[in-house]
Amino acid sequence: MKKVAIVGASGYAGCQLVRMISKHSNLELTALFVSENSADKGKKISELYGSLDGICSLSLEPLSSAKDIIGRADAVFLATDHKVSHDLAPSLVEAGIAVFDLSGAFRISDTSVFESAYGFAHEHTDLLKKAVYALGEYVNLDELRNTRMISLPGCYPTASQLALRPLIDNNLLDLNYRPSINAISGVSGAGRKAKLTNSFCEVSVNAYGVFTHRHQPEIAEHLGTEVIFTPHLGDFKQGIHATVNAKLKDGVTKQMVDDAFAYYKNKPLVRVKDGMPKLQDVQYTPFCDIGYAMKDGYIVVCSCIDNLLKGASAQALQILNLYYGFDELEGLL
Amino acid sequence: MKKVAIVGASGYAGCQLVRMISKHSNLELTALFVSENSADKGKKISELYGSLDGICSLSLEPLSSAKDIIGRADAVFLATDHKVSHDLAPSLVEAGIAVFDLSGAFRISDTSVFESAYGFAHEHTDLLKKAVYALGEYVNLDELRNTRMISLPGCYPTASQLALRPLIDNNLLDLNYRPSINAISGVSGAGRKAKLTNSFCEVSVNAYGVFTHRHQPEIAEHLGTEVIFTPHLGDFKQGIHATVNAKLKDGVTKQMVDDAFAYYKNKPLVRVKDGMPKLQDVQYTPFCDIGYAMKDGYIVVCSCIDNLLKGASAQALQILNLYYGFDELEGLL
Amino acid sequence: MKKVAIVGASGYAGCQLVRMISKHSNLELTALFVSENSADKGKKISELYGSLDGICSLSLEPLSSAKDIIGRADAVFLATDHKVSHDLAPSLVEAGIAVFDLSGAFRISDTSVFESAYGFAHEHTDLLKKAVYALGEYVNLDELRNTRMISLPGCYPTASQLALRPLIDNNLLDLNYRPSINAISGVSGAGRKAKLTNSFCEVSVNAYGVFTHRHQPEIAEHLGTEVIFTPHLGDFKQGIHATVNAKLKDGVTKQMVDDAFAYYKNKPLVRVKDGMPKLQDVQYTPFCDIGYAMKDGYIVVCSCIDNLLKGASAQALQILNLYYGFDELEGLL
Amino acid sequence: MKKVAIVGASGYAGCQLVRMISKHSNLELTALFVSENSADKGKKISELYGSLDGICSLSLEPLSSAKDIIGRADAVFLATDHKVSHDLAPSLVEAGIAVFDLSGAFRISDTSVFESAYGFAHEHTDLLKKAVYALGEYVNLDELRNTRMISLPGCYPTASQLALRPLIDNNLLDLNYRPSINAISGVSGAGRKAKLTNSFCEVSVNAYGVFTHRHQPEIAEHLGTEVIFTPHLGDFKQGIHATVNAKLKDGVTKQMVDDAFAYYKNKPLVRVKDGMPKLQDVQYTPFCDIGYAMKDGYIVVCSCIDNLLKGASAQALQILNLYYGFDELEGLL
Repeated sequence: MKKVAIVGASGYAGCQLVRMISKHSNLELTALFVSENSADKGKKISELYGSLDGICSLSLEPLSSAKDIIGRADAVFLATDHKVSHDLAPSLVEAGIAVFDLSGAFRISDTSVFESAYGFAHEHTDLLKKAVYALGEYVNLDELRNTRMISLPGCYPTASQLALRPLIDNNLLDLNYRPSINAISGVSGAGRKAKLTNSFCEVSVNAYGVFTHRHQPEIAEHLGTEVIFTPHLGDFKQGIHATVNAKLKDGVTKQMVDDAFAYYKNKPLVRVKDGMPKLQDVQYTPFCDIGYAMKDGYIVVCSCIDNLLKGASAQALQILNLYYGFDELEGLL
Repeated sequence: MKKVAIVGASGYAGCQLVRMISKHSNLELTALFVSENSADKGKKISELYGSLDGICSLSLEPLSSAKDIIGRADAVFLATDHKVSHDLAPSLVEAGIAVFDLSGAFRISDTSVFESAYGFAHEHTDLLKKAVYALGEYVNLDELRNTRMISLPGCYPTASQLALRPLIDNNLLDLNYRPSINAISGVSGAGRKAKLTNSFCEVSVNAYGVFTHRHQPEIAEHLGTEVIFTPHLGDFKQGIHATVNAKLKDGVTKQMVDDAFAYYKNKPLVRVKDGMPKLQDVQYTPFCDIGYAMKDGYIVVCSCIDNLLKGASAQALQILNLYYGFDELEGLL
Repeated sequence: MKKVAIVGASGYAGCQLVRMISKHSNLELTALFVSENSADKGKKISELYGSLDGICSLSLEPLSSAKDIIGRADAVFLATDHKVSHDLAPSLVEAGIAVFDLSGAFRISDTSVFESAYGFAHEHTDLLKKAVYALGEYVNLDELRNTRMISLPGCYPTASQLALRPLIDNNLLDLNYRPSINAISGVSGAGRKAKLTNSFCEVSVNAYGVFTHRHQPEIAEHLGTEVIFTPHLGDFKQGIHATVNAKLKDGVTKQMVDDAFAYYKNKPLVRVKDGMPKLQDVQYTPFCDIGYAMKDGYIVVCSCIDNLLKGASAQALQILNLYYGFDELEGLL
Repeated sequence: MKKVAIVGASGYAGCQLVRMISKHSNLELTALFVSENSADKGKKISELYGSLDGICSLSLEPLSSAKDIIGRADAVFLATDHKVSHDLAPSLVEAGIAVFDLSGAFRISDTSVFESAYGFAHEHTDLLKKAVYALGEYVNLDELRNTRMISLPGCYPTASQLALRPLIDNNLLDLNYRPSINAISGVSGAGRKAKLTNSFCEVSVNAYGVFTHRHQPEIAEHLGTEVIFTPHLGDFKQGIHATVNAKLKDGVTKQMVDDAFAYYKNKPLVRVKDGMPKLQDVQYTPFCDIGYAMKDGYIVVCSCIDNLLKGASAQALQILNLYYGFDELEGLL
């Protein structure tokens, strides 16, 4: 049994982590933390999420420093604000704790790109170099198990990369045609905060962060190519549907594309469909569903995930399973 | 042409008033007000509501006192907080302005009931006595036209009374069986504010204010009988569906019930259906749809309205139309 | 390991059964059946439900008679039409198979009431007498384990009885005031069929089956008292929220009511909340959440379940767990 | 007063036409038709659409031939199946009736493209040549008023062209980069039919008709350039949000783009926003809202319409208003 704690447990990804860890055979959930000034400190997690009533009886502890965690956990999930992760991770790693960071603090290797995307300078470049960017189906297990600083991809980047990597890794795209990614996300992606833009009556489909969203540089870096990324808000709670438009190289056949996506054959959490995927099939699940069609040298790839699960907490747990050599699906279904 | 102004124009009912008044043949919209400290002051209403772009070009003025209004309007809609209406109405009425108050400030005649429901003492009991409670299909036109203080019913009370009045007015109910009203409302009923309870991801069906909602005493007073009123939040933006359970007096026949509801035959905004009404048929409309069924001496009556329209702004405009002798439906469809 | 099969696997409850049984430690899913003429026969269940892709690879077999099942299953879930269950159950029971019937075929003991509710005469009255009506938290384990004909409650009856039984069992209600149950259900309750009333654009809140729904006699029989039951369609996929209005006997105190609901203290799937329950907390879970408030001798009780889970498949599995002495929650979370 | 009739009045666009025509100062609605074998023939339109109760009392007449219409209408809206429009239009035009065709029968000039898109051969090529394709903001008034065969654009093509035409007309795009249009539509776009894919519980975001949707050749022809068009189903009733990705020619500035979109300055139904448009602002309205952003030589344009209104019925009525010289907005707001 490994002991795990969650920092930022009061958020939507935190709630999902609690739910999954509670049924994980190899993990013991030892502590839930919120920021020191959170209005939720001292509350049971089940007061915030009635769905966890009867599943988890832990209360939310205010976190003042890494010391509050050290000694109580072998691994920690940081489901926190980027700055909090940035500040907290070094001490945890140094104390021998495996850090699974769901924030964006260690996703981008170029610190100037990072700063312009996240609004503050990265001060832990040594740790940043040791960080392993852990996309479930592509992570290098040797590298993963050789670090304690694991950076989980963002939700949009997960959906985007899983759609595009088979094509890029197999060199099938004509990248002179800049691929575009149009993605639509459930409102939970904006976090558990009272904001007018998230108010029930204000939500309807709209694009936001066009050309400015911080997931664009993350996608571009890890795909190794520029992309046009346009996120949209959708009128549903959980899920991301991403549609990729790209140009195939001359001579690329359907068979070559099929072969590229066959990469996922033995990846239990990515399902390549005969037709186009439906968001509903992945909502509340840890799966990513992918479909594609091609014509006239162009290809459209669609991928669906649950933003809170494969796009955050379930992928984090998948990676922890791989890290410790547990069954990849343990706790996820 | 009558000149009208709206106080509290930034709210959801205010937005609907702007939309309808803009196409009203006999009204000129002269001013929109928000509270003095509103973050929205100075903004165009169409910045808050993109739907009003091209329809209304007015900006939101901060309201410091009744003087800001006097001279600029023959009639004023108060789509404000109860306390604001309570404080503002006397000066407006005194200045000769017809006040159409959508708040609860002048709906309850018993000031001790009022105080316990609204949390502050009523200080304008003289005006309260002159106020006419104006339920569209039941208002006494002579009384209406003889006052300048018009109090519009609440949203739930509108749906509830339109469902129950034919039965009560015709003495068909055994009131020893206390009628129950179970109503479900769209989220817009909670107003345009960022609150966690209104956040998209937090909204699902739940009862609230059970036995404590301030619309209960309003309904009870104007029906002249106690009721069990249980409001619920629904996962839709606009609309109220109310289901009434009541017991009929011995010997009451289907025909007698039909006759009672025939009251609405020449009321253009209430439609008595053959079966049960659907919320969708009244959403974004000024109508109230009603259906009922009876068995074993019990009756179930369902009524549907749009909470922002027949439950607020459209009823206010319907009453203004009746007040000035305009076509009852002018501006509403 | 017990072998189980599902008849009617193509429906929404069937899909949930497949999902849960697939992760059940003590069950092996051996066969999925649809009706002989189903357009879905021969298809993989994951073709109908993409969410089951990677979870279950079984195909849907056409069922011609009980013989297709006998020898292949220790227990069978009938998630079928009432008539199909009625016709099929006797042969299965006789063959020694434990039958968990999710249909209404064996829920009502009075055959004349049954016939008027279900539209056909009950021809298996002997088996009907042996059938145990298995409401999760109230089933008598000795009786349950002494039969092979287990009848699962309907979705509305589950929510209704869990709300009312503590009050009735403790004799706290003045039943001269007929309790009313106003319940709203997700559209999945209407089954997986293309019907105009279920079409996305046609769905909005409306009452249906008022005074005529077949769940009314089921509730009345098993509570031992008449009730006014009004079901409503809601604009969500899964879930039921039920609101009960009832009158307390003179002298009934809050403490007495609390004590009555304390019955659920050691029932892991019923959670009594401090306030009113939220539908969202039980959606996609096997739980029932209950809350209540009282005033002036009246009580309002609200209960929430997922209609497909606690209202159908999860309760069926809960009962199977109790039947075989497995952990009550196995496979459910 | 012009007399108008609607063929295909039972559909969603038909319902909207009835609603708008009923409040149009210059139109008299004389007849509503459905196909000869429709199950709805003989019913009042308000039986199908409760929302029209009190607004229109006409019944649905079965249409056997053009003769049923001739003499009863100056103008006819065809909100029918493509084949029905194709067969019916010639007789109507010949009889001197102005035909406003909402189907796809006369939108594509190349008959071989038409046949492969619509599945039947075009047999009225003479009339096809006389047909005017009437996109509200771009229609040539002289041509429009000189024909009786008016072909209204499809819903997706309306949103797509209004987004792209300013850029293409001003020669601002590098069309070597094939523009992509990713659009998401409300379920009403699929029509009022009971289909499993439209069932409430089956609807979630998914792409469909990728590279094969019949609106692609319509868009390509009228824009004069190939496009990648990917339609998606959304989980809302009405509305289309389209996102266009395109490449600007070298040297194109923000000012040049702004100038191009200034085309809409005096077009009352197209609103160019400062930021990105919200679907909600146009739902249930006749408007099209447009926003755009550019970076690194690429541009993203978003446009929103209500698919049933600006994408069908409201645009048809807008064009009729222009045809007869009525106020462009008459009946629309």
